[in-house]
Amino acid sequence: MNAHIRTAPARTQIPGPAAPRRRPRLEPLASSAVRLGPASLLGGWQELNATATIPHCVDNVDRTGVIANFRRLTEEAPRQDFRGFWFADSDLYKTLEAIGWEMGRSGTDRWVPMLSELADLLEQVQKADGYLNTYVQGKPDEEPFSHPEFTHEFYCAGHLMQAAVALHRGAGDERFLAIARRVADLIVSSFGDDGRPIIDGHPEVETALIELYRETGEESYLRAAELQVERRGHGSLPAGRFGSQYYQDHLPVREATEAIGHSVRQLYLAAGVTDLYLENGDQTLLRAMEQLWDSAFGTKMYLTGGHGSRHRDEAYGDPYELPPDRAYAETCASIAALQWCWRMLLATGQARYAEEMERALLNAIAASIAHNGTAFFYSNPLQLRTGHDGSSEDAPSERLPWYDCACCPPNLARLYASLHGYAATSDATGLQLHLVAAGTFTAENLTAVVETGYPWDGDVMVTVRGRGELAVRVPAWATGASADVTAAKLLAEPIPGEYLRVSCDDGATVRLRLPMTPRLVRADDRVDAVRGCVAIERGPIVYCVEQADLPEGILVEQLRLEPSATIVEEPGQDGVRLRLPALVSPLDTGLYQPYAPTSSTGTSVTVTAVPYQAWANRGPGAMRVWLPLA
Amino acid sequence: MNAHIRTAPARTQIPGPAAPRRRPRLEPLASSAVRLGPASLLGGWQELNATATIPHCVDNVDRTGVIANFRRLTEEAPRQDFRGFWFADSDLYKTLEAIGWEMGRSGTDRWVPMLSELADLLEQVQKADGYLNTYVQGKPDEEPFSHPEFTHEFYCAGHLMQAAVALHRGAGDERFLAIARRVADLIVSSFGDDGRPIIDGHPEVETALIELYRETGEESYLRAAELQVERRGHGSLPAGRFGSQYYQDHLPVREATEAIGHSVRQLYLAAGVTDLYLENGDQTLLRAMEQLWDSAFGTKMYLTGGHGSRHRDEAYGDPYELPPDRAYAETCASIAALQWCWRMLLATGQARYAEEMERALLNAIAASIAHNGTAFFYSNPLQLRTGHDGSSEDAPSERLPWYDCACCPPNLARLYASLHGYAATSDATGLQLHLVAAGTFTAENLTAVVETGYPWDGDVMVTVRGRGELAVRVPAWATGASADVTAAKLLAEPIPGEYLRVSCDDGATVRLRLPMTPRLVRADDRVDAVRGCVAIERGPIVYCVEQADLPEGILVEQLRLEPSATIVEEPGQDGVRLRLPALVSPLDTGLYQPYAPTSSTGTSVTVTAVPYQAWANRGPGAMRVWLPLA
Repeated sequence: MNAHIRTAPARTQIPGPAAPRRRPRLEPLASSAVRLGPASLLGGWQELNATATIPHCVDNVDRTGVIANFRRLTEEAPRQDFRGFWFADSDLYKTLEAIGWEMGRSGTDRWVPMLSELADLLEQVQKADGYLNTYVQGKPDEEPFSHPEFTHEFYCAGHLMQAAVALHRGAGDERFLAIARRVADLIVSSFGDDGRPIIDGHPEVETALIELYRETGEESYLRAAELQVERRGHGSLPAGRFGSQYYQDHLPVREATEAIGHSVRQLYLAAGVTDLYLENGDQTLLRAMEQLWDSAFGTKMYLTGGHGSRHRDEAYGDPYELPPDRAYAETCASIAALQWCWRMLLATGQARYAEEMERALLNAIAASIAHNGTAFFYSNPLQLRTGHDGSSEDAPSERLPWYDCACCPPNLARLYASLHGYAATSDATGLQLHLVAAGTFTAENLTAVVETGYPWDGDVMVTVRGRGELAVRVPAWATGASADVTAAKLLAEPIPGEYLRVSCDDGATVRLRLPMTPRLVRADDRVDAVRGCVAIERGPIVYCVEQADLPEGILVEQLRLEPSATIVEEPGQDGVRLRLPALVSPLDTGLYQPYAPTSSTGTSVTVTAVPYQAWANRGPGAMRVWLPLA
Repeated sequence: MNAHIRTAPARTQIPGPAAPRRRPRLEPLASSAVRLGPASLLGGWQELNATATIPHCVDNVDRTGVIANFRRLTEEAPRQDFRGFWFADSDLYKTLEAIGWEMGRSGTDRWVPMLSELADLLEQVQKADGYLNTYVQGKPDEEPFSHPEFTHEFYCAGHLMQAAVALHRGAGDERFLAIARRVADLIVSSFGDDGRPIIDGHPEVETALIELYRETGEESYLRAAELQVERRGHGSLPAGRFGSQYYQDHLPVREATEAIGHSVRQLYLAAGVTDLYLENGDQTLLRAMEQLWDSAFGTKMYLTGGHGSRHRDEAYGDPYELPPDRAYAETCASIAALQWCWRMLLATGQARYAEEMERALLNAIAASIAHNGTAFFYSNPLQLRTGHDGSSEDAPSERLPWYDCACCPPNLARLYASLHGYAATSDATGLQLHLVAAGTFTAENLTAVVETGYPWDGDVMVTVRGRGELAVRVPAWATGASADVTAAKLLAEPIPGEYLRVSCDDGATVRLRLPMTPRLVRADDRVDAVRGCVAIERGPIVYCVEQADLPEGILVEQLRLEPSATIVEEPGQDGVRLRLPALVSPLDTGLYQPYAPTSSTGTSVTVTAVPYQAWANRGPGAMRVWLPLA
């Protein structure tokens, strides 16, 4: 019972968060084969995560009663009430997953005693048949899996499995893996081919069961995941207040090709279905996922990589319904979107999936965490108005240290701890770099050392050791990208939205220059909510204007941009800030008035735009990503 | 116990829905002193209400178990579960209120037997102490008034009181009045000056208690209402998921001058506070209401007179947060807004309050009911997109015959049945007409016979019998209005947003000509959601464009208006339709793309605009009130 967790990784090759058994189009580089430079933006986040975010999560799952929810079940008669939401177990599991990846990344042993204690605790709480869920176990009248639309039992089990896989990969742990396997075995025996054909209201277990299969080789886990996928969409769950689509139970997955319903559930399901394709090669699944992806990323995604327009049911809206002020854009949805895109990238090798990973990572996800690593947005709007009522947790004006529904903070922790596992792949020809970042990337035959100040600087210098093909993704916005190579042969020019491909000899250098000129972006005309507006981007970074940078007496709502305005770059704080002139439009009087042609007038002011990822680090205040044209 | 309800009005003067005891700035004309022409739009609605909507409500409160909720409590041990929402009693009470007003209006006796049966039933269910609430009475473990933030007990009691007042005024009934008084007496004794200082989570009882005071002269009801108003806003209710503002408990009423929280609760409270001012003359209440009104109507109201931008908590948004697609704009909120405006009009005599009554009545409220009178919108958006997911009751693509939460249909029924009570007032000088409609309006010294096809036609002919001053409201949009009078002296010219005032001799005629040229309207620049768009109005009527009127292959999202386009009027179906040319813009490709200056191109098409009040009577489909400019 009290065996200690090992402190060293079990193996030198630590697979990343998704490690297909069946060879995909692109194979993920082992996370141990990637080292992100600590001075790089992404590497810096990993350090901050290790030193601030993960400890903060550990403290808060304890403080908010998540661990007490387990502990009370070890007593004869639980004296304490269950605390938090019914899926609070998953807050602990996501934190454990973060710790697993972080131990693999840095070799830290600071959490080893805690892990041993927690393994003891979970072993005590887990029932003889493998069942483990502190919400249901604390309700004597509740049969396990009797309300799968509500209780999140599979969901919590899935997060336990993912934690166990991460702790096994990153820390060589066997105890959590054994606990998770007992849970998975119960799911197999209860809900397998001959079991009750139920599904969970919140998809998550699909991708988790498949990763557990990948880690253990146990085929029944893959089959259990397949059954979860195939049983979904037949209306087996009661529809509830928000309809079947809320549970992703409205249509079978091959027909459910419009992104709809609760966005996190939609995106976790899509990740699971794509994992299933990666293992079983069923092309009908891939085709459905491609259509679904076009719907989500082509008609329902925010410029920042946020997903989900509606607060009411945390759901996707209609196509092009993308209000910046009421963007729900849950942090977890962008994380789930990144996880899904990664799997689509492995399946197809297409740059667009990596493009969207980068968009989400550098904008919606990056914005959701404060500079100190210990305060978070749950919802990531693209606009706060003057006079915003930020008193609700649902749409606060500032990042909060924690949430009653605390899904997002530990989700960020597990993503950042495993981030190096999402950067690069290999195939028979060589190495592919998808997320451009300073660091070292090692495939079988070649290692790429990347030096760059990206995403603030567009100069990307790659030095290659060994031989083989190197592919570097050229972002779709990078019109005018150029490349110089030495000791190497250019196979494909740097075309935006494709890959620069180079055949390298040992010692080759590849220098990619991405033009970082700030640019104005507009949305499809059908995005009514930002008609007549532009956003400012520089490289992959979306910018915003904050009230904090405006002179007294000028409201952010008064600014009008001249599209021909010269934008000046100011490197320094928050990467690169931008300065540009804007007209200050007088405030209207009267909510509705007769239309009359007008031309913009008003005084001029120089405006500072900051990366959206940096907003709201100077107190609450109005903010806009989309700015009206003069 | 079994006395029959009387079939004839108790008195020839039937007070309207709000009949102040203390003389207000303007006194409402008794509803018996107003007869709306049956061929007029408003009078036609009243006929449809009597023949279709009220019978439909009667059927549905029965069918959905509302009456069964009462009946089960007359059995020894209730065998049936409570059905519907916990405030379902109010569905019956609002239907009864409609019947009361309708009996007063038309003298119908069709519901007399039903009323007698229902009076029997309510007398049986009412407890000895006066308590009457079928949700709480059916829960043996629930103490009355133990969860006032949730149970709506005061709210249901308020609707019972309003029903009783209407039945007393309109039908001479004494039995419902006695039942309602016993409920009110219980509130006085339990929550009076020496009672428990609680308030209800849903304001409503304030205005109801005051009307019951007005009808009975019982001063303790006024005091009970005053206590409800004064106790509100001290955070006495648990804040809950949506915060204290959801319950209107965030600030005392004199400080709560921003419209915020659940919009129906906000507006019912405001009506109650204004009623309190009308009786106690406390100027600090009126000042707070004026500020609150400016916030609601000046920064948070839809062009259609809808209120409430957010689906999540049915709440007002931030100032200028007015998305047309996700407008919640609950039917009940517009009804409540009209009721509040009426009381503000009585208090101040200012035309702007009548202006907003008309806006709501002819647009948001009128649109919420189908041409057949038996299908309803709960939410009244100003835009449905192509591809709208209309599967949710919350944002359906078509009117539904009934709702699980059925507050709106019987609220429409009670409004329409009492509509003639909101049209005109009198003061020492004479008669004021606020809602222009064909009909007969009788004040003490003069009667005005109005002949007009308004709101479709701008020619308003008034013939006066008797002598005195006649005031006719000139809408704020009616630039160029003119008047001719005979046997009368013009005291004030017809200035838009004010009153035409005429001193009349017997036989005088006043002819007001309101220019009905269609016009384009824009919103304050801060209403981001409709930037670059205009709406079409003609007189007080807001128009929209429906997919149903467009040629195959052209989507409503492709239309661009030329602001100088000639708009042609087509009288006929739905009052007056409009025809105008529009550009058909090609659909964009790509959700986000580099900004480049463009000019509108595309083919031209002639577009039909129909009154918003008539939309969605030809099957589901896309619709827009706000149309982008070319």
